[in-house]
Amino acid sequence: MERFEKQLRFLKEIDGMKNVLRQTMLVDYSRRENDAEHSWHFAVMALILAEYGDGEVDLFRVLKMALVHDLVEVYAGDTFAYDVKGNEDKEAREQEAADKIFGLLPKEQGQELRDLWEEFDAMETRDALYAACIDRLQPFINNYFTQGHTWRRGNVSPEQVYKRMEPIKYGAPELWKFVEFVIEDSIKKGYFLCAGDEQNK
Amino acid sequence: MERFEKQLRFLKEIDGMKNVLRQTMLVDYSRRENDAEHSWHFAVMALILAEYGDGEVDLFRVLKMALVHDLVEVYAGDTFAYDVKGNEDKEAREQEAADKIFGLLPKEQGQELRDLWEEFDAMETRDALYAACIDRLQPFINNYFTQGHTWRRGNVSPEQVYKRMEPIKYGAPELWKFVEFVIEDSIKKGYFLCAGDEQNK
Repeated sequence: MERFEKQLRFLKEIDGMKNVLRQTMLVDYSRRENDAEHSWHFAVMALILAEYGDGEVDLFRVLKMALVHDLVEVYAGDTFAYDVKGNEDKEAREQEAADKIFGLLPKEQGQELRDLWEEFDAMETRDALYAACIDRLQPFINNYFTQGHTWRRGNVSPEQVYKRMEPIKYGAPELWKFVEFVIEDSIKKGYFLCAGDEQNK
Repeated sequence: MERFEKQLRFLKEIDGMKNVLRQTMLVDYSRRENDAEHSWHFAVMALILAEYGDGEVDLFRVLKMALVHDLVEVYAGDTFAYDVKGNEDKEAREQEAADKIFGLLPKEQGQELRDLWEEFDAMETRDALYAACIDRLQPFINNYFTQGHTWRRGNVSPEQVYKRMEPIKYGAPELWKFVEFVIEDSIKKGYFLCAGDEQNK
């Protein structure tokens, strides 16, 4: 049972995902969500919105990416997307964490998950691009429903959000109009501390 | 965008899964886990342990089942597996909740998810049986790592746990030895208030 013991050790360790807090709030504004919750919500969202993916998306692979895309954060922690300093050493921290977390598994299984994670991160394949869109949409939506909590708290500008959401133009182009609507509506409603130029005129 | 609005409404509503508390504790014993966390952990576990499924399991379908299998609990709440009274009206409560939650989606999409949920619940197909095994294994493992917290709290007997875990004999037979080991070891370690007959001799 040596193989199973490795798998069990991994499955126990990733319970830690439930303690990795993100900046995003729950829709009811009661508390911040964690990586396990985000990964689940991302996966369901990918399932529901698959029809908007650009071209033929392999949803099975996307679901696997959603499930494992944040596993390195068990050791590396969550880096806020708009945290410039935190993102400087993010890659090094995450590569080290990946050695550790995927290394718990039987070799070929750990490699399979690591490959999926790296593919997701590189955003170069069609599946990874669609997955990246949904990974961005999930907190974007929760954020809109909580009056831009994360944007205000992080002093994020509409321009930064436009930039962050840009993959949607290519990976789920039909949803771009929705993204634009949400950002513009959020500017109007004062969900940004630093509203766009138009707003300041 | 009427179709997308329905999907968005659904994706907002299921955020409530993050507030449906289960009896299971996190491995670090800090708090109870919720349905979103359980669903994610279940899905990753299904992915990692697929090789133990009986015969050819369609993992893509199993992952979809894992993601949606508890959605009705957004309205119906979580019913503890060993709660006899709570399980009496569980089906009626969950059918009503299913009408409501799956009814938010565009018709054919809601029906597809509802069919998956009902297949999972019936445990009659190979995929559903494997999914049911993992749905039981996840809290079983967390429970073992938290000194049988849920079993003690609910005054659950080893015989009840054996019965609850029985699908594993058929759906993931290679893991049955592990199940037996955990239950017997838990009896020895005093993780049950009411230890098995052998223990009381």
